[in-house]
Amino acid sequence: MIKKEMVPFRFSDKEVQCWFGVSFDDIREQLSDKRVIWVTDEHVYQKYPEEFPAGECIILPAGEAGKNQDTVNTAIEELLNMEADRDVFLVGVGGGVVTDMAGYIASIYLRGVKFSFAPTSVLGMVDAAVGGKNGVNVGLYKNQVGVIRQPEHLFYNFSFLNTLPELEWISGFAEIIKHACIRDAEMFQFLLNNSLEDFRQDLNVTGDLIRRNAELKYKVAAGDERESGQRRLLNFGHTLGHAIENITTMPHGFAISIGMVFACRLSEKLIGFDPEKTEALKYLLKKYHLPTETDFDKEKAWDILVHDKKKSGDTIHFILLKGIGEGVVHPLSLSELKTLFFEM
Amino acid sequence: MIKKEMVPFRFSDKEVQCWFGVSFDDIREQLSDKRVIWVTDEHVYQKYPEEFPAGECIILPAGEAGKNQDTVNTAIEELLNMEADRDVFLVGVGGGVVTDMAGYIASIYLRGVKFSFAPTSVLGMVDAAVGGKNGVNVGLYKNQVGVIRQPEHLFYNFSFLNTLPELEWISGFAEIIKHACIRDAEMFQFLLNNSLEDFRQDLNVTGDLIRRNAELKYKVAAGDERESGQRRLLNFGHTLGHAIENITTMPHGFAISIGMVFACRLSEKLIGFDPEKTEALKYLLKKYHLPTETDFDKEKAWDILVHDKKKSGDTIHFILLKGIGEGVVHPLSLSELKTLFFEM
Repeated sequence: MIKKEMVPFRFSDKEVQCWFGVSFDDIREQLSDKRVIWVTDEHVYQKYPEEFPAGECIILPAGEAGKNQDTVNTAIEELLNMEADRDVFLVGVGGGVVTDMAGYIASIYLRGVKFSFAPTSVLGMVDAAVGGKNGVNVGLYKNQVGVIRQPEHLFYNFSFLNTLPELEWISGFAEIIKHACIRDAEMFQFLLNNSLEDFRQDLNVTGDLIRRNAELKYKVAAGDERESGQRRLLNFGHTLGHAIENITTMPHGFAISIGMVFACRLSEKLIGFDPEKTEALKYLLKKYHLPTETDFDKEKAWDILVHDKKKSGDTIHFILLKGIGEGVVHPLSLSELKTLFFEM
Repeated sequence: MIKKEMVPFRFSDKEVQCWFGVSFDDIREQLSDKRVIWVTDEHVYQKYPEEFPAGECIILPAGEAGKNQDTVNTAIEELLNMEADRDVFLVGVGGGVVTDMAGYIASIYLRGVKFSFAPTSVLGMVDAAVGGKNGVNVGLYKNQVGVIRQPEHLFYNFSFLNTLPELEWISGFAEIIKHACIRDAEMFQFLLNNSLEDFRQDLNVTGDLIRRNAELKYKVAAGDERESGQRRLLNFGHTLGHAIENITTMPHGFAISIGMVFACRLSEKLIGFDPEKTEALKYLLKKYHLPTETDFDKEKAWDILVHDKKKSGDTIHFILLKGIGEGVVHPLSLSELKTLFFEM
């Protein structure tokens, strides 16, 4: 088993206790002096019903479709009905949708109560739960509402991965590959030398990989929580990816995978990224069962893309690659991007 | 006219530029390098339509009844339709309801954009706009959802008071009297020596009084933004006041006025507050046309009171007076308070 260990993640206004290799019992013990209300979704609850005490648990609908203000309003009403006061402690247990919403609910309820996360998916563990971004979608537009606020703890219970569906494994590895592309060429090679099946069979190795990714995400996000500098690198593949995700409703990681290939092509055109490296990325993505292209309505995608919240005036900070492991922020005018986008 | 002057209000994470004695033109000049979207309500808009540029303005419904998440959702959709990006700057122009909602909208839109306030009412100027609390009501419960976030600027344009209805003047003076009770015995005497009619006739004197109150509120709130210590003093009169406001729908200041008299009676019973001082407060409140008692459903008020978000476990931090100008935080068990409440 993976050794239990606490690593402090130091953000500008808070130190998050990041616990690797813990069990449900460890989490309960850590929070034994608090009134904990658990926030999870239908899927996680069905798999682990005995872990969630009746009456102290909010069960959200599963999936991206329920990631909206209506779901948050219902949760707020449940908290009021439970007479949860300012000392209540929310623990979000689930994938990225659950932790994004649990963090947002905790941030606005009574103008903010404390919270922690126990991510249950690869994507949640390596990405969504780390960095303090939370929120909900507004119609087709992703994460247009939310705040930035760090949890008290991150609890990594790798046993959740035993019940994680294959599609979720695949989707999560898209973010791992993204991390490799922007910051970790060595990990890119490590991923090439292994396969999804290897990782699914050896949770010890996977635990180490997830920790490496959580720490990478933390280091890129810390000190730039509001994303005005290097945190932008984490959007590699996401500008087009979010648009494709919205119009095709494919899983997040799948859409991001296609977005990464697009960003590599753009990198070739704009900053001389080696086309062979694009092929290497495509090979790696396919190896992890991720798509590298899809048919989609370009006009529709463009409309969503221009609403992208990373836009600043007429400039989009597009993330390109100089090399594998070398992401760069490249300011691009909307008109320039539009021409390139419709050409490609 | 009142001299234009900037006073920095230093909160734990931000310095707010507090401008006294400014005009609409001064505000526009200060923000001339930004894309400003104005947030106001129907009443203010009808009085000053020429000040709000068409297409760059969100007009909220006027009054407490519209202070809810639905109104916020509509405003968020308007911002998306205006293609407001992360560099947008919201300016809330209105009473406490407007600034509370504008601050909340700015705090959650795209995970937070910058904002400033130009309060238009006495209550907004001396209380609601200062201190960074924002949010909306949930059903009968006030301000159950929101965040704590400071604006970039506070703009005091005293000419707004020329069009302020009498009822709003009266309601605002309840918070001024509250400040005198908890922290400023000299101001209590000053208020006794003057009248509402005096203040309405001389905006120079009123401007000074408002500045004194804004600075008092700032000093009590700064360093305790999350209200775990002395900021609690500002709740004097508010525990019962909020409950009465909800069940009778009387104006905020009127309900708080009745709540202050109740808190004085409680202070007599629990910490020996001089009953003659209670009479002095009642005299002052009446002088400013504020009610000191009302008929209300005690059972209903109690139900709302126990949901008060200031509650911490079974303890309410009730604000009592030792003397005029000497507010104290008094922890009281719910059962103790219940007995006293139904006896009185």
